[in-house]
Amino acid sequence: MSGTASARTKDKNGWRVHTDYLELNTRKRYEMVHITPEIDRIVRESGVEDGLCFVTPMHITAAIYVNDNESGLIEDISTWLETLAPARPEYRHHQTGEDNADAHLKALLLHHETTLPVSDGRLELGTWQRVFYAEFDGRRQKRVLVKVLGATA
Amino acid sequence: MSGTASARTKDKNGWRVHTDYLELNTRKRYEMVHITPEIDRIVRESGVEDGLCFVTPMHITAAIYVNDNESGLIEDISTWLETLAPARPEYRHHQTGEDNADAHLKALLLHHETTLPVSDGRLELGTWQRVFYAEFDGRRQKRVLVKVLGATA
Amino acid sequence: MSGTASARTKDKNGWRVHTDYLELNTRKRYEMVHITPEIDRIVRESGVEDGLCFVTPMHITAAIYVNDNESGLIEDISTWLETLAPARPEYRHHQTGEDNADAHLKALLLHHETTLPVSDGRLELGTWQRVFYAEFDGRRQKRVLVKVLGATA
Repeated sequence: MSGTASARTKDKNGWRVHTDYLELNTRKRYEMVHITPEIDRIVRESGVEDGLCFVTPMHITAAIYVNDNESGLIEDISTWLETLAPARPEYRHHQTGEDNADAHLKALLLHHETTLPVSDGRLELGTWQRVFYAEFDGRRQKRVLVKVLGATA
Repeated sequence: MSGTASARTKDKNGWRVHTDYLELNTRKRYEMVHITPEIDRIVRESGVEDGLCFVTPMHITAAIYVNDNESGLIEDISTWLETLAPARPEYRHHQTGEDNADAHLKALLLHHETTLPVSDGRLELGTWQRVFYAEFDGRRQKRVLVKVLGATA
Repeated sequence: MSGTASARTKDKNGWRVHTDYLELNTRKRYEMVHITPEIDRIVRESGVEDGLCFVTPMHITAAIYVNDNESGLIEDISTWLETLAPARPEYRHHQTGEDNADAHLKALLLHHETTLPVSDGRLELGTWQRVFYAEFDGRRQKRVLVKVLGATA
């Protein structure tokens, strides 16, 4: 996982919008990847002191969610998603040759984007809030877009 | 579906917030309406070069979601929502004379709003990301609010 | 429920970001708290005329949602969440000594944050749209962060 060369900043009159990307390629088809440190790094690099940080995968089989970084709970979330949006052959989407309709449904359930608060130049998260990239059709190159918008110091 | 006369722009020191509305009236009670072209048009008209585009229905029985514009998948999503939030007579909400409690639950599942990234004066979407208005209680006039906020060129 | 002493404002060149907090402590473990008046008050106090209002609990067992303030529907939503994300002993998260895994799942279902539009110095909501704090592990002090970002009058 890494930031990209395409980071860019628009800066005017004490306000700034900074855009960066994370590249991910999970080893497993389903995987929850903890990305708080990467998002916080982008926020610090942005130079935005107070504002909002918007995070979204550029894909339709992945989501961003905020919750606990506890391995048992991460398993519970995965099992729960499988119950509510099971992988099975009968989806109509599979008539196109695809086999990942459940990945779309799981991504919809967790919502494909999130916004996070930025204060004092850092993510302002609660004690247990952590940011996760939820991959449901991995083992290929994916991209997460991050935009930080707000006032500079 | 059309933009409205009430579009307006607030512009100061190289930053802008532009507000516009879409009016929709679906023929069917449940309907997924592809609105990417309309949202992208509002973004272009806004003159915002880099920032965020916020989209929300002004109703509690509709949602906005981002996913694939593939007819089989759209059917899968609709079937899946019916499984998780079925239309049935027994909801307590129906004691008020309403018959659409399932529409509220379906809308909650998909989330009532979304934010989208704006770069180079356009929506910056992944290859397959498309924006949908999900109607669960249609055949009446509905309104979608769009706000584009960011730096001008 | 009350605003806090830690409200703060960053103001530059006609644009502003205002941050405030709500403190909540529900009497019941599960509770839906109507917070539209509090959020609208913070928006008015912010002095932001046109922009976005971001609302999020700083916790992982609570959510923010927008829907109808009708007591039957609120019961329907609660019953429905219990069906889709039931409280039961067998979650792996409970091996850590916790007993609230269902609260995490319920919060994920409703999404942990929302953004709301601000126009003419007020929340711009549809006729029936109301903002709720959804608590799934209450009877303790919780905090909701609110950021209002936009142009001043």
